[in-house]
Amino acid sequence: MGDVNRQWVLAERPVGRAVRESDFRLQETPIPSPNSGELLIRTLYLSVAPVMRQYMLDGAGFEKPLAIGDVMRGRGVGVVVESHHPDYAVGDIVQAKLGWQQYVISDGSPWWMMYKVHQRIAPYSTAIGVLGVTGFTSYLGLVDIGEARAGDCVVVSGAAGGVGSNVGQIARNLGCSPIIGIAGTDEKCRLLTQRLGYDAAINYRSENLDQRLGELCPDGIDVFYDNVGGNTLDTALLHLARHARIVLCGRISEYLDNEEQPYTLRNYQRLHKRMARMQAFFIYELEADFPRAEAAMAQWIAEGRLTYAEDVLEGIEQMPRALMRLYEGENRGKQLVRVDAAAETYGRGGDQARA
Amino acid sequence: MGDVNRQWVLAERPVGRAVRESDFRLQETPIPSPNSGELLIRTLYLSVAPVMRQYMLDGAGFEKPLAIGDVMRGRGVGVVVESHHPDYAVGDIVQAKLGWQQYVISDGSPWWMMYKVHQRIAPYSTAIGVLGVTGFTSYLGLVDIGEARAGDCVVVSGAAGGVGSNVGQIARNLGCSPIIGIAGTDEKCRLLTQRLGYDAAINYRSENLDQRLGELCPDGIDVFYDNVGGNTLDTALLHLARHARIVLCGRISEYLDNEEQPYTLRNYQRLHKRMARMQAFFIYELEADFPRAEAAMAQWIAEGRLTYAEDVLEGIEQMPRALMRLYEGENRGKQLVRVDAAAETYGRGGDQARA
Repeated sequence: MGDVNRQWVLAERPVGRAVRESDFRLQETPIPSPNSGELLIRTLYLSVAPVMRQYMLDGAGFEKPLAIGDVMRGRGVGVVVESHHPDYAVGDIVQAKLGWQQYVISDGSPWWMMYKVHQRIAPYSTAIGVLGVTGFTSYLGLVDIGEARAGDCVVVSGAAGGVGSNVGQIARNLGCSPIIGIAGTDEKCRLLTQRLGYDAAINYRSENLDQRLGELCPDGIDVFYDNVGGNTLDTALLHLARHARIVLCGRISEYLDNEEQPYTLRNYQRLHKRMARMQAFFIYELEADFPRAEAAMAQWIAEGRLTYAEDVLEGIEQMPRALMRLYEGENRGKQLVRVDAAAETYGRGGDQARA
Repeated sequence: MGDVNRQWVLAERPVGRAVRESDFRLQETPIPSPNSGELLIRTLYLSVAPVMRQYMLDGAGFEKPLAIGDVMRGRGVGVVVESHHPDYAVGDIVQAKLGWQQYVISDGSPWWMMYKVHQRIAPYSTAIGVLGVTGFTSYLGLVDIGEARAGDCVVVSGAAGGVGSNVGQIARNLGCSPIIGIAGTDEKCRLLTQRLGYDAAINYRSENLDQRLGELCPDGIDVFYDNVGGNTLDTALLHLARHARIVLCGRISEYLDNEEQPYTLRNYQRLHKRMARMQAFFIYELEADFPRAEAAMAQWIAEGRLTYAEDVLEGIEQMPRALMRLYEGENRGKQLVRVDAAAETYGRGGDQARA
């Protein structure tokens, strides 16, 4: 650290294959200096998300595709270390599209989706986790898209992931029942029922998902919050209750499928039979609802009714590894990288930014 | 006619195959007599709908399955010819689940879904067509489920059928544009553009649907009103606009598929990419909204802004043939059978019921 800016850039596109370490290159550049109207941010935490492979390929339909040599795109939490921008002061904690780098210059324009972090009840990492876009995805996906209500049977795939680790607890706080999580290891399943609000968990690798859903959801699934897609979605379709809502959040099991050979869904006709709905959403289009989600989540945290599961690697060197863990199903909760070892000391009594 | 009641009963179930004439048997029974609290209805028109094959097999998930020998289930319009029920008088025109028969006794309980026909602006047949459940399906499917708005690109499959023949015109009255219909013959396609409000039509049998949708919907489909399912739905998925709504109304192309080998959907992942929604509905659950739909449709008819396409066969002998025409794609507009040749004379000046 100190006087260089370490950055991960795109070296190769993972066309038709999984992401691998050599798709990225770590480079060192000088720490840039902000001009008038700009601010310099020092990265504290960086987030990884399944969509990043799409950024590497084609932009995922809502971002400009990355060019080879571009700094990898991603959200993070940082501290303002120099500011020539009227809205930001040195010491402010912000979350924004910082990219995979230790320092970044921003003009604070809308593209950055920059929000100040005001809450002091939890580590700054939560600003890109449970109290950030990941948490808003969990909350708004379940409440607004899924229209979950008290008494609903809620089933969540990828339940031990960044989004899923919140959804079960939100469902519990809404009075849903039963709340069933699907994950890929017994360890994750224990995490689901012991810490993350799930009534029961299904290990889709070692158990028969179809049979277990039948046992655990005898009256059918009212809300299926899907982070996985593929065969998991297909199996859940067989267990829909009348008027079920399927929240299409992610489809990480299909990430290697291509346009020519996409996953084919066998049981879509169950939507007809159950007068059901299947709906995708783009969380940034719900930006007007972020404050509502944040308020609900922050209150539950303060009341001890929402815990957050974070899986934190140390050091910016770990970024490619962190991303790969998502596709390999290795992460427990929200996958993050702590870029600055002193992250939590900033703005919390005495410590100066750029200390 | 006169003193016998001719009825079609279920003779055989069309398991794993198309419906055929020998699945039904025409029988003659005495005209029944109503007791206290009951009324006797003489059938004027009967409706057929794709769901009827499911009634013959398993009840379609919301009706009791028919037993062999049961009178076929179906809606119709009739005239009350004898009444011992306080809410109904001789000469009243009603629509209800009359079944495939010339006379029926009813107690008017909710199961019958019996509504009096008050309007006098159009033939009684419209009470089971454009001003009945078929029309309400068209209107509420497009307006409530599809949330069609002015300027939306609306595409309708099975556009020349009972539902589709209304949807294009409703879309036009809402200000949608362009409005594209899909049908299976050139003759139907001409009907769509010349009479039924469509801007353009695609003959899916002779044209390349994928290519034509691309040409006709350069900005993508906002609402896809699907009566067909299968490959047509799959192709439409490739052309969704952002935030598209797919209204799952029917899937007649899949009617021979079974639970073990259902149609597999190739392009469901487009819902993710377009933040789109796919939603099924059951029209009888929207019963509270029927008056709103009826009022809108009746007003448009009165203003000359909604025409109705009916395909009417004569005589109760034609019921099996009428149903089979649906699966064969033979019908132009709503398929009906006129059971009483003097249907329109009742209650319209001088003619007595049971004349």
